[in-house]
This record gives sequence, structure tokens and C-alpha cells, in this order.
Amino acid sequence: MTRWPLPEPMARALAEAQAAAEAGEVPVGAVVVKDGEVVASGRNAPRARHDPTAHAEILAIRAAADRLQDERLSGCELWVTLEPCAMCAGAISHARIARLYYAAPDPKGGAVEHGARVFEQAQCLHWPEVYPGIGEAQAAAILREFFRERR
Amino acid sequence: MTRWPLPEPMARALAEAQAAAEAGEVPVGAVVVKDGEVVASGRNAPRARHDPTAHAEILAIRAAADRLQDERLSGCELWVTLEPCAMCAGAISHARIARLYYAAPDPKGGAVEHGARVFEQAQCLHWPEVYPGIGEAQAAAILREFFRERR
Repeated sequence: MTRWPLPEPMARALAEAQAAAEAGEVPVGAVVVKDGEVVASGRNAPRARHDPTAHAEILAIRAAADRLQDERLSGCELWVTLEPCAMCAGAISHARIARLYYAAPDPKGGAVEHGARVFEQAQCLHWPEVYPGIGEAQAAAILREFFRERR
Repeated sequence: MTRWPLPEPMARALAEAQAAAEAGEVPVGAVVVKDGEVVASGRNAPRARHDPTAHAEILAIRAAADRLQDERLSGCELWVTLEPCAMCAGAISHARIARLYYAAPDPKGGAVEHGARVFEQAQCLHWPEVYPGIGEAQAAAILREFFRERR
């Protein structure tokens, strides 16, 4: 559970997740922060964009790298509402993200503390510091509500 | 080793890899095929695009999904010159690619037969048929030449 107030980047990531839900996409949101400033944000949008890679983390990382004109987001933080999957964990490593904060764990699809455990592999040349659980209750509630409405 | 002639999609992926090398990017190329027709291709370009996700596979998958206006590339094949990393293996799974052909194995960064072994995880809900080794000698030669010139 989370103590109030939530750090502002996670509050913003949760707002992105809520916006994804309202657009009919699985509600996940992400924000890239550098030196305390939000550089870019993203929300899950594979259906609307016809893009299977359009997870919140990928969109936020691509937007941040484009904005900074640098393929490496060294020193940047990524705040995301759900444990990243293998694709997104790989992108986080390639982008040299320094710190990863995620809200809810994802036993069914996560690849940080579950399954592929991408950052723990010998093939992983860069891994972020990982801080799970911030905003977990809120992120899980948004996901639960989304899937309940669809049942 | 590979018997001649190479299947046309792998020949085209190798040409994409060579073009990447000439642009100063790590030489990897990829092609998406549907019903025997090339739908999209891509070459590694993270530096030029300032995009850490701009691996050949990701670019080919995104272009194919955009062209087909469908986030799912069901029934499609992906031909790539190097064993996909965790990010790209995850994208291949999300895209529902039916068959994956790759040329050279990548013990240092691969996540199909090495490391994260993304398709073997319980969290992986879709995995392609995997055919490694087609064009391996040619793909490895292009990579070796690229890194030799940079030493």
C-alpha cells in the first residue's frame, strides 16, 4: 500500500493509465523524468495506433529520446503503473534508464521480478535501480475496474 | 552453414543489415513476410533516429502493422539476421508473429536461445515457430567486418 501523497511522476503516470482506460486500451501509463522534470509521458495504445509495440513505456522512452535527441536516457527515471514486460524491460535497458519506479507487480506478464527477469540476465549490459510498489493500490484498482467492465 | 540459394527474405534482410553497416549502425536487418510477400523491412538505426527501440525487428514489425492496419501480425513471418534481444522477442510475441527465422545466434545479447529465453517463459502467451541458422555465415561476416573496422 502507498502512503499519500504520491510522488508527482507516479500521479501523472496513473492519470495516463486512466486516460488509456477511457480510450479502451489496457490501462498502463508511464512518465520519463530527468533532473526532476517530466521529459515525456505515454499511455498504452496498441489498438488505436495499430502498433503492437505501443506500450506506455515504449512510447514514453521514444518521446523522451526524441526530445533529448539522444538514444541514451542516462540519468533519467521511468515511472510506470505496471511491472514492465520483456519488451519494455529490454527497451529500458537499451535506453540506459537509471531508475525504474513501478506501481503494481504483474505476475502474468511482468519480466522484472517475474518470468524472463530481463535485468538479472548475463546478457543485460545495463540495468536500472528498481523501486516497485509506489502507487500499487491505485494502479491495481484502475486495471481491476477496466477488466471488470469488460467481463 | 547455409546452402545456396538463400531464401529471398533472408537475402533481403542481409541487404538491410549491410545498409545499416554503411550508415554506421550495428548491422542487423529484418523483413516481415505475409503469404509469401514482403510486407515491410527494417534496419537497425538507434543512433540516426535517436531511438533506443529502433532495432531492425521493431521497425519492421511497426511498419508491417501500420501497413496492415492491425496490431496483430497473425500468420506473418519475421526474417532477421541476428537472434532477437529481449525487447524484440517481446515485440515478436505481442505481434503474434507465426514464424521466426534468424541467421546468427547472439550469445551476448540474444533472448531466444540465450539469457531471458522469452518464448519459454510462462508469461509468454504467444510464441512463434523458430528456425535459426539460415544465412548464419553471411550475417556473422557482416557483423565481424563492421566491428573489425571500428577497432
